[in-house]
Amino acid sequence: MRPLLIGRFQPFHNGHMWLARKIVNEYGSIIIGIGSAQESHTLVNPFTAGERQYMIQMAMEADSIHDYYLVPIEDLYRNSLWVSHIVSLTPPFDIAVSANPLVKRLFLEAGKNVMEPEMKSREHYSGREIRKRIIEGKKWDDLVPDQVHRVILEIDGVKRLQDLSKTDEVNK
Amino acid sequence: MRPLLIGRFQPFHNGHMWLARKIVNEYGSIIIGIGSAQESHTLVNPFTAGERQYMIQMAMEADSIHDYYLVPIEDLYRNSLWVSHIVSLTPPFDIAVSANPLVKRLFLEAGKNVMEPEMKSREHYSGREIRKRIIEGKKWDDLVPDQVHRVILEIDGVKRLQDLSKTDEVNK
Amino acid sequence: MRPLLIGRFQPFHNGHMWLARKIVNEYGSIIIGIGSAQESHTLVNPFTAGERQYMIQMAMEADSIHDYYLVPIEDLYRNSLWVSHIVSLTPPFDIAVSANPLVKRLFLEAGKNVMEPEMKSREHYSGREIRKRIIEGKKWDDLVPDQVHRVILEIDGVKRLQDLSKTDEVNK
Amino acid sequence: MRPLLIGRFQPFHNGHMWLARKIVNEYGSIIIGIGSAQESHTLVNPFTAGERQYMIQMAMEADSIHDYYLVPIEDLYRNSLWVSHIVSLTPPFDIAVSANPLVKRLFLEAGKNVMEPEMKSREHYSGREIRKRIIEGKKWDDLVPDQVHRVILEIDGVKRLQDLSKTDEVNK
Amino acid sequence: MRPLLIGRFQPFHNGHMWLARKIVNEYGSIIIGIGSAQESHTLVNPFTAGERQYMIQMAMEADSIHDYYLVPIEDLYRNSLWVSHIVSLTPPFDIAVSANPLVKRLFLEAGKNVMEPEMKSREHYSGREIRKRIIEGKKWDDLVPDQVHRVILEIDGVKRLQDLSKTDEVNK
Amino acid sequence: MRPLLIGRFQPFHNGHMWLARKIVNEYGSIIIGIGSAQESHTLVNPFTAGERQYMIQMAMEADSIHDYYLVPIEDLYRNSLWVSHIVSLTPPFDIAVSANPLVKRLFLEAGKNVMEPEMKSREHYSGREIRKRIIEGKKWDDLVPDQVHRVILEIDGVKRLQDLSKTDEVNK
Repeated sequence: MRPLLIGRFQPFHNGHMWLARKIVNEYGSIIIGIGSAQESHTLVNPFTAGERQYMIQMAMEADSIHDYYLVPIEDLYRNSLWVSHIVSLTPPFDIAVSANPLVKRLFLEAGKNVMEPEMKSREHYSGREIRKRIIEGKKWDDLVPDQVHRVILEIDGVKRLQDLSKTDEVNK
Repeated sequence: MRPLLIGRFQPFHNGHMWLARKIVNEYGSIIIGIGSAQESHTLVNPFTAGERQYMIQMAMEADSIHDYYLVPIEDLYRNSLWVSHIVSLTPPFDIAVSANPLVKRLFLEAGKNVMEPEMKSREHYSGREIRKRIIEGKKWDDLVPDQVHRVILEIDGVKRLQDLSKTDEVNK
Repeated sequence: MRPLLIGRFQPFHNGHMWLARKIVNEYGSIIIGIGSAQESHTLVNPFTAGERQYMIQMAMEADSIHDYYLVPIEDLYRNSLWVSHIVSLTPPFDIAVSANPLVKRLFLEAGKNVMEPEMKSREHYSGREIRKRIIEGKKWDDLVPDQVHRVILEIDGVKRLQDLSKTDEVNK
Repeated sequence: MRPLLIGRFQPFHNGHMWLARKIVNEYGSIIIGIGSAQESHTLVNPFTAGERQYMIQMAMEADSIHDYYLVPIEDLYRNSLWVSHIVSLTPPFDIAVSANPLVKRLFLEAGKNVMEPEMKSREHYSGREIRKRIIEGKKWDDLVPDQVHRVILEIDGVKRLQDLSKTDEVNK
Repeated sequence: MRPLLIGRFQPFHNGHMWLARKIVNEYGSIIIGIGSAQESHTLVNPFTAGERQYMIQMAMEADSIHDYYLVPIEDLYRNSLWVSHIVSLTPPFDIAVSANPLVKRLFLEAGKNVMEPEMKSREHYSGREIRKRIIEGKKWDDLVPDQVHRVILEIDGVKRLQDLSKTDEVNK
Repeated sequence: MRPLLIGRFQPFHNGHMWLARKIVNEYGSIIIGIGSAQESHTLVNPFTAGERQYMIQMAMEADSIHDYYLVPIEDLYRNSLWVSHIVSLTPPFDIAVSANPLVKRLFLEAGKNVMEPEMKSREHYSGREIRKRIIEGKKWDDLVPDQVHRVILEIDGVKRLQDLSKTDEVNK
């Protein structure tokens, strides 16, 4: 059985890693869909799809996990086509893993199975929290897999987020 | 004379029905443009263009009205092209019916006639109010034509709206 | 039962009319999808979606047929999303009517029923033949319903096709 | 050396004129990119790209400045492609002039030079302030070059802004 | 009076220059629309919109012509919206100059004036011929204004065209 | 060092497998870009991006190759943005592998390294030849990795191609 997990992974953190590992252990494999793949260089979506794929794959391989498919998924802005869009971009999957009401409803209307993800310490592992800490210069490396930390440094991601957070007093 | 009435019709309610019938009676025919046709499965735009066309046509035919044209109209996101977009999608029309300042201005700059719609009991017939009542499980069937009520039940529209309204505590 | 018939209808001719009437008689209603709705002003697609809807509806109503849905359908350029695109734009349908191998395959993969259309005197009723006759100034009015003929004259369609057919010796 | 200055110029005002003249005097020429070129007829972006190009060029020529390139630039909604988009639409440039943190970061990641614009009396020369005054019927002609004032009158821009600002009490 | 001349200008040659100068002399000014602005790096459209604007402006200024507007125009792929697209991107114009039957028909249906361009030695001044000569290493510099020749050399345009013309025997 | 190899892989065959393995052996890793990712269900592009990713990954894993990145890449239809598009979707790469003159020119203008792929028995390993054999019911399984053969059977790919190849005598 092959579950599909979709997220934005801005960045991929320990909570994601824990969930992905758990799914692979239980079901044998996983498809990880990198959502909003066209977005980058914003405070909410700082990293490109390529950078996110790089992070995730480095973390998975460092953990000796090979049974996963990584698929960038651009937003389509048409809810009625979204499930077909996902299906066309991914290897066959049996069940979608999501806690998002819209995602669950769309898969349900398309006749697909959906399950709620088990989450671990949500309060500690949140993309929003990690981006905030990076901007404020606080400690964040313990919240992400080592490889993710390394990739963010390699691509100068800390400086990027801090630059983007500067207020623009002029162009109003 | 053939007026054009544009709305999102989420859903088509008694106020719309009253206005459409009045226009057909006065002018002989009407073009009904279903706006934001690409939208669906959101709290503001829960129904697809096909579902909305289905509702409207069922209600009109149940009222023995045949002199209408139904045209789904996708958003173009370019105000300067919008009137040409409408013109290319519709049979010839003589006047646009709208209370929206942008719509009125765009038709005016394109040299088209515009008139304000007469409205009946706006406070009772509002798409927003009806969607709210559906979500909260309150009475709403007296605010829409019978056929619209039936279509919304047939397409499982009540459950869709209620599902979409659930708060997503996880994917933040 | 509600069949779906998709065509470009450039223009809607007697063969289309015969088939549409036959489907309504047999199944009680029909959805007519006007394909390549975004196209117009070319030799293959001379008429806008609005003009085509106007023609078809005038011809149907002149024949006292009311049990039909008319839906313009823009090309999506993504075969894998095409059936979902159709579904989102149309009232519920039970079977698609098409002789096109791609269309048949796409509906089949989406788990939808498809049937071949019966055709009447294909050689006489062909959009291509009618467009050719219009351009060459030959007799064509006996190949289309009266209302279609009238609409094409009303919108200056003969001159449009003849203008478009002129060779551009300069802009090469 | 040829600097690139990007703005929305809604409208082009004395602050823009002062900066453009200064850059031409110092560097010999300038490329002026008219951003969000696809936008018009909104309270934030009332003027089309064509109207904005008209204003700017009239003002520059009235000042006997010829050494400038005017380039409308549509939004691309993909930060990662934005610098390439700019480069493909403009003559070669050496440095970008911007105070916007995102713009600065994107040019920097693309290996381009960026400099902060000198600004003059920001509080007096602001597009937002000018649009506000136009809507409220206050004096604004002293904040823009004469030619800009004339163009806005010629295209009926005052009435457009005032119409767009009317509250729509009906279409809620 | 302000005529609008639209072309792809791949590249801008002596025939274009002759026509543009003639229009400015007769009418006082000209709007030059650079069509298919999104295209580049193909055998038919080798130069970017920015490169074409650069060529044209350099040639015009070298001839001391200032009364022109240069506007890149991306293809819209919707004939029914094309005239509105042009209008939104350009300063006001009075007449379109074109020999293209589609362009003429579209402006005519939009109620705009159109006139045929006078052409000079079409056989000698053809973009296709110039691109062919560049690829084949034949003499072409006498067919374009000096500044255009210089710009094509500056942007390494000869090598670009020759590279693009190489047959790809592998990726079939 | 990490090379980037882009192809359409319709389907992924022994020639691709040989080249990918060779690159991984020589350089340690590879990024495989699946081009024209939005295409499917045509004679030239029969398989979806998801199906192609499935084939390639199954073949690579069966060969115990893990050091690869698989990235679907949709066509952008703007040559001037294409390299930035690739860069935004992929992990960092050092060199592009391509024999396509346009691809080579675009990477070269973007300051990237390009190398020609070594090819093995081009005449035997060609996507076009394999698609032709599948349609004609000839032997083709010896031209692709075992896993690719299995995936094509699993997704009913033979019947899809044969269906798509049927001539449409009606819809002309």
